[in-house]
Amino acid sequence: MKGLFITIEGPDGAGKSTQIELLKKYFKEKGKNIVITREPGGTLISEKIRDIILDNENIKMEYTTEALLYAASRAQHVGEKIIPALKKRQVVICDRFVHSSLIYQGLGRGLGIEEVKKINDFAIKGIMPDITLFFDISPEVALKRKGKIDKRDRLENEKIDFHKKVYDGYKKLIEKYPEEFTVIDATKSIEDIHEDVINKLYEKGLS
Amino acid sequence: MKGLFITIEGPDGAGKSTQIELLKKYFKEKGKNIVITREPGGTLISEKIRDIILDNENIKMEYTTEALLYAASRAQHVGEKIIPALKKRQVVICDRFVHSSLIYQGLGRGLGIEEVKKINDFAIKGIMPDITLFFDISPEVALKRKGKIDKRDRLENEKIDFHKKVYDGYKKLIEKYPEEFTVIDATKSIEDIHEDVINKLYEKGLS
Repeated sequence: MKGLFITIEGPDGAGKSTQIELLKKYFKEKGKNIVITREPGGTLISEKIRDIILDNENIKMEYTTEALLYAASRAQHVGEKIIPALKKRQVVICDRFVHSSLIYQGLGRGLGIEEVKKINDFAIKGIMPDITLFFDISPEVALKRKGKIDKRDRLENEKIDFHKKVYDGYKKLIEKYPEEFTVIDATKSIEDIHEDVINKLYEKGLS
Repeated sequence: MKGLFITIEGPDGAGKSTQIELLKKYFKEKGKNIVITREPGGTLISEKIRDIILDNENIKMEYTTEALLYAASRAQHVGEKIIPALKKRQVVICDRFVHSSLIYQGLGRGLGIEEVKKINDFAIKGIMPDITLFFDISPEVALKRKGKIDKRDRLENEKIDFHKKVYDGYKKLIEKYPEEFTVIDATKSIEDIHEDVINKLYEKGLS
């Protein structure tokens, strides 16, 4: 097994999808087979697990149950889709991975980063990303760029508060595990960001 | 919260159900409220999780996914049923708990006892049993007692092999964590076993 495993992290509106498309094009031109994925990853079992998590009927769900279900869904995604692709030496680009769980379940739900990391370590069977790109842009700037900042009502404000928490979560995580992240300035133009990404891959011998 | 949390472990045919009934009667006569439970514990969410585990359609399920789903089901059982009962100072008797997962997933599936323990520690939120009774009887003796040993065919033999593995698993586990088990000689008569159980509870100040 020696494909290339890239995970993409960052707040909503950081331009992740656009950059994933450009990366896909880049690797395609180099003759690589690419798998673009995100959880639950289109595997039948992961979808069923996700259905339980999202079912509004399940209002009594414990936070621990939720975190374990996300980890179970990830375990299936890793075993059924990511590992087989890497074994075929493909480039796997995954939109959000373990780090997102550390933020949403570990910090967001108050379960603790270390605790949520343990159950995810179990889920991923040692399949760590070769590189995790963090697209760094504050929620204010991201929303401003989208032209959404002016017509802010109460709900918009709440949303910004939520996005701020997520952004702060990433910052905490990067502080805690700096070696796990490659930070990309996502306030730049689409083309400049793409160039930065390729340069970082090159620096790490992954391009 | 200070109820009493008793878990029961042991191979099939060890007489667990009979002893649970006798324990129930014992505590009832002492005026205690008893909750007899076993996973998935009758909680809606745990049942749904169990459905995914047992669905024959899901043949591609990873062992890690399975173990995380069992842990998720347990997390819900603990949070929704066991903790509330203990908070009401009730006696909770649970037929099989974490130790069974350590054997079936940790040893049986080869995932490792320590690894499976980690995800279960996350699931149970520090709710350790006050006592775990292990009903000790070898599969051969258990089956003989049931009068099943003579008419053994290939399938019966396979079953015995499986039960032997489970029994050996318990032995390994007890060796590893002796302080977590109270071993009861389950080859004795029903009445004698019950008396032993009550004596052990008494010794630990739990009767």
